[in-house]
Amino acid sequence: MSFKILQEKINAKKNPTVMGLDPKLEYVPGHIRKEPGFGSPGDMIFELNKGLIDACHDLIPAIKPQSAYYEMYGIDGLIALKKTAEYAKSKGLYVILDAKRGDIGATSEAYSAAYLRGDIYDCLTVNPYLGIDGIQPFIDDCEKFDKSIFVLVKTSNKSSGDFQDIIVEGGGTLYEEVAKKVLEWGNADNIGVVIGATYPQQLSDMRKLMKNTFFLVPGFGAQGGAADDVKPAFDENGEGAIVNSSRAIMCAWMKPGDGENFGKYAREEVIRMRDAIMGVIKS
Amino acid sequence: MSFKILQEKINAKKNPTVMGLDPKLEYVPGHIRKEPGFGSPGDMIFELNKGLIDACHDLIPAIKPQSAYYEMYGIDGLIALKKTAEYAKSKGLYVILDAKRGDIGATSEAYSAAYLRGDIYDCLTVNPYLGIDGIQPFIDDCEKFDKSIFVLVKTSNKSSGDFQDIIVEGGGTLYEEVAKKVLEWGNADNIGVVIGATYPQQLSDMRKLMKNTFFLVPGFGAQGGAADDVKPAFDENGEGAIVNSSRAIMCAWMKPGDGENFGKYAREEVIRMRDAIMGVIKS
Repeated sequence: MSFKILQEKINAKKNPTVMGLDPKLEYVPGHIRKEPGFGSPGDMIFELNKGLIDACHDLIPAIKPQSAYYEMYGIDGLIALKKTAEYAKSKGLYVILDAKRGDIGATSEAYSAAYLRGDIYDCLTVNPYLGIDGIQPFIDDCEKFDKSIFVLVKTSNKSSGDFQDIIVEGGGTLYEEVAKKVLEWGNADNIGVVIGATYPQQLSDMRKLMKNTFFLVPGFGAQGGAADDVKPAFDENGEGAIVNSSRAIMCAWMKPGDGENFGKYAREEVIRMRDAIMGVIKS
Repeated sequence: MSFKILQEKINAKKNPTVMGLDPKLEYVPGHIRKEPGFGSPGDMIFELNKGLIDACHDLIPAIKPQSAYYEMYGIDGLIALKKTAEYAKSKGLYVILDAKRGDIGATSEAYSAAYLRGDIYDCLTVNPYLGIDGIQPFIDDCEKFDKSIFVLVKTSNKSSGDFQDIIVEGGGTLYEEVAKKVLEWGNADNIGVVIGATYPQQLSDMRKLMKNTFFLVPGFGAQGGAADDVKPAFDENGEGAIVNSSRAIMCAWMKPGDGENFGKYAREEVIRMRDAIMGVIKS
């Protein structure tokens, strides 16, 4: 579904945040690990994800599973990913698959067939290093199947500047070049960008450059981004961006050490994050 | 396994080429499609791959499955990928998974756990856009588990120049910056680079810059690269590079329209490619 639908879900829930589902086995509370019948890592991860979705689906517009954490558990993990996405869809959530795919044209077309042509995912993250012919197959399918992509522009990690911040001929940075190309390539209804919460100045600069582009903003919470940091991602109407938090929500039960109630603690964290971000957007 | 082992396999077979396994259902000959019991796309793809490996394993040092073509067929396709890699390993082949993964550090660690910590794959292709903390987990596992990676430098597709050829401050290109960083980051035994056969001048320049680095050279055959084009990838001893061909081998049976003998035509194509490349290396 296009970003118009995502924005409608955000507005309906009054919450521009997405729950990242990046599960490791150590995030699974003991009572799920012990439950008979939940033997495989994939089963346990799905049970954790299902509990998180059950606890938070009325508060959040979207989930963002990170593919790596499922691929890590092999076929079993990938079944858990599919079941998680399907369960989230059944609850009316928008599903962003964070897989950062990107390849030569024919291969990107195969990736696009894998993730954008079915009913399971609404949106995919995409790596721009290979240029437009590695992106075009995704754009084509976005238009054909009413899906969306987020292209990596300025990522949230510490060394994102190794290449993204390189100064190019003419004086800008590489990530600005990528942003400019995104504006040329696609329709803002379907093609958004990733810019990390850990780089508020860049968020602000990019919002000025890309007035109508939807932003996916990772790096909030465990990675260090705070509510004030993400404010510049939003447009003058307080729209056009969604902020991700994964570990802070999934692991909220660990500090009180109360795994039985992991859903309750996740819900409290989701509310805290929503209120913090809505507070700065409105101010 | 490190590139030393790959080079030994290349030397033993006197063949510096890798068979790319990028299967689409339309590449599967009719008799495999009709065979009872080979009902699912994954089963058919595995049967095709197994036939290609059976026909060519004594001639080639390695295979390179492209993950997208398996992900496209869902769980069923991913089972076929795993079975293909295991079958190739049982025949003594070096297995390069072409998945172009790369993410923030914690997530790259999960990808590395998925592909470099087990016994299934020897080597993984990696995207550098996120910088060193997205690469380091792979490098660490390469050293710990005797594996290898190829980092994308200059890819074979037409629009690879959109970003890779951007001129940066100081006068070089982005792909040269990536190449220089690869030299800083890692050991040449484990960390190689991808440079397309479609860019012979860049292959030559990069060989001068990276004297001891192993090159994976895609784009030969169906994508347009010829034997003369890949010559500059090799070092003065005719070593240090491996050239990939996928469609030209997998679809060799299509021109004569003789699917029953797809293995024979693949084998002929492998020999033709080997002889063409060995011919120019020696000259």
